[in-house]
Amino acid sequence: TEEFNFEEHSHRRFNPLTNSWVLCSPHRTKRPWQGQNEVNNNELLPEYDPKCYLCPGNERAQGAKNYNYESTFIFSNDFAAVKIEQPEYLPQEQTDKFSNLLRAEGVRGECKVMCFSPKHNITVAEMTEDAILHVIQSWIKIYQEMSTKPYINYIQIFENKGSIMGCSNPHPHCQIWCTETIPEEPSKELLSMKNYYEKNHSCLLCDYIYLETIKLEQKPRIICENDSFLCLTPFWAIWPYETMIISKSHIISLFDLNDRNKLQQDLANIIRRITCKYDNVFKSSFPYSMGIHQAPVDDKDHTNDSHLHFHFYPALLRSPTIKKFLVGYELLAEPQRDLTSELVAEQLKNSLPFVFLWRFA
Amino acid sequence: TEEFNFEEHSHRRFNPLTNSWVLCSPHRTKRPWQGQNEVNNNELLPEYDPKCYLCPGNERAQGAKNYNYESTFIFSNDFAAVKIEQPEYLPQEQTDKFSNLLRAEGVRGECKVMCFSPKHNITVAEMTEDAILHVIQSWIKIYQEMSTKPYINYIQIFENKGSIMGCSNPHPHCQIWCTETIPEEPSKELLSMKNYYEKNHSCLLCDYIYLETIKLEQKPRIICENDSFLCLTPFWAIWPYETMIISKSHIISLFDLNDRNKLQQDLANIIRRITCKYDNVFKSSFPYSMGIHQAPVDDKDHTNDSHLHFHFYPALLRSPTIKKFLVGYELLAEPQRDLTSELVAEQLKNSLPFVFLWRFA
Ligand SMILES: O=P(O)(O)O[C@H]1O[C@H](CO)[C@@H](O)[C@H](O)[C@H]1O
Ligand SMILES: O=P(O)(O)O[C@H]1O[C@H](CO)[C@@H](O)[C@H](O)[C@H]1O
Repeated sequence: TEEFNFEEHSHRRFNPLTNSWVLCSPHRTKRPWQGQNEVNNNELLPEYDPKCYLCPGNERAQGAKNYNYESTFIFSNDFAAVKIEQPEYLPQEQTDKFSNLLRAEGVRGECKVMCFSPKHNITVAEMTEDAILHVIQSWIKIYQEMSTKPYINYIQIFENKGSIMGCSNPHPHCQIWCTETIPEEPSKELLSMKNYYEKNHSCLLCDYIYLETIKLEQKPRIICENDSFLCLTPFWAIWPYETMIISKSHIISLFDLNDRNKLQQDLANIIRRITCKYDNVFKSSFPYSMGIHQAPVDDKDHTNDSHLHFHFYPALLRSPTIKKFLVGYELLAEPQRDLTSELVAEQLKNSLPFVFLWRFA
Repeated sequence: TEEFNFEEHSHRRFNPLTNSWVLCSPHRTKRPWQGQNEVNNNELLPEYDPKCYLCPGNERAQGAKNYNYESTFIFSNDFAAVKIEQPEYLPQEQTDKFSNLLRAEGVRGECKVMCFSPKHNITVAEMTEDAILHVIQSWIKIYQEMSTKPYINYIQIFENKGSIMGCSNPHPHCQIWCTETIPEEPSKELLSMKNYYEKNHSCLLCDYIYLETIKLEQKPRIICENDSFLCLTPFWAIWPYETMIISKSHIISLFDLNDRNKLQQDLANIIRRITCKYDNVFKSSFPYSMGIHQAPVDDKDHTNDSHLHFHFYPALLRSPTIKKFLVGYELLAEPQRDLTSELVAEQLKNSLPFVFLWRFA
């Protein structure tokens, strides 16, 4: 009789970081696509756009003027989702069972924007390792700076790349949202890692790295690595081309990279390689949301429940114009994927880690 | 000094059904939009499309032929995400801490598709209450039928409407995915409702209805209601125009609607009203994912942890072509919304509950 096979049969995989499941239906890849097609945005852009509010020297939405920056540039988001100055929220006293049904809390904080480069038409994949190193050093600096501020307990750095990821400006940039509260996703990860540590006296991600790089004979999910960082498709990935960059040593935040040149260099190297590999999959600039998970900056000790890592959540499914929709079943029931993590790792492993020169084609 | 105000200041709201938080930044609505615009798909379609695989009499992807149905029509999904026939998954014995890091389970089940109408160019909003009643009766029937099958413990009925919701065919239809496992979202709701019941000896959603319809003096989140059902924007909504339909009496599944004509009629009535209201917000066919949450069909008693309700998750933010992107911060940190639930309820309350005749304009 036939044996159960991850490449053929429907199964769920468990995400130990968020404590949740994803449904995998590998045979669904045969399904023809008759739905919406995205615009393939391989448009050639100018190096400087006079109408871009992120380009050097230009004016922003609320009138401020960017200075003539030469590498990275940080400023306060003109439409910040959270602000430092707002009245304190004083909830009504919890008197009955109904109060938990209308529960709220105030959230103070700051939102920053960081341009990666003065060049309007470059992407991380096309930047040199030195230029990416400069971005990393700016991340370390802003993480340090924001961590000393009152009302800031968590710092979420993320990049939306590509218009299908809701990015409203192609100028390469990321955002830094700093909040009083620790948001949902990092909270779930902190809790899972804490529980894992209490049970096993080891770090969940340290163990996961050991499993993927040493314990397993075949290395079915590893895409690339260097001395300090590993890039893989997690066993429990949701998005078709989802990957993680994990630090090989147990460092818990960007703070731990401070003054450690080798670690910073290796991080720049692996970021360049995975972003180039992405662009080479469909020979086009690959849209994704990317973000850093690390220790909160509250006053607790996070040695045992944090481990620096990056998540890449790309939207594409099978061509530059066909994306994966996380809709009906995903929103109502459970995330669902067609390709297995192992197949995607194989594809990304074979994808070249060098800049894809479509813009000069 | 200024007082804290939900319409002005950033806050989080707690979702007691899924036990999670959403960040609300009401002042962000002032932000100009320079990002991707969707296609406004107000195209006139024919009543019958010879190339549609859902139209009566036509051939489907794998060669089967639809019969000449006159109201609803159910068939097995030609690219089912789960199947009844597959080998059993036998995980390796859990011997060490690493086994929880590569945890999986097999999932058997069945996927069905249900056409709402033989007409290719109609939507739920444009159907008569009698035609919607027929859809409801078909839901009841399929829920009963599937619940008796082996390997089926949960039945997820959902509709993806509109191409921006990943719907690949405009012919009005929903899907029914039946699985051995109880998926993530209903699992979370079942657990929260169970915990609530154990603590308070009452049903979470019964209490929430009492709170919104009777206990609160102003009714800031109620959109419309009839004798049996209530439609509101939940306090903790994530999507800008998210709503819920909740049954006023404590019924736990579609099964409880069987042979109860008044309940069925009232459900048809409220579905028609909210879908029409949606179309009237931006004077265009309103895309959404919609789904039913109800009791699992496993052999447990779900009297205390289930309560029949519908979720509507529409994608639009502020026009037929500007959608809300749940991307970077939402994927990495926490869902974020701009409009408050109360403002949206006001807008939907004022939106007409009659069919919007754009297709005949
Ligand atoms: O089955 P369909 O309608 O072709 O596919 C659509 O709905 C599914 C269930 O929500 C999603 O997994 C797909 O990404 C989406 O395109
Ligand atoms: O702040 P931006 O880039 O204008 O906005 C984008 O990213 C935000 C954070 O992920 C999202 O909430 C918005 O929906 C998206 O359009």
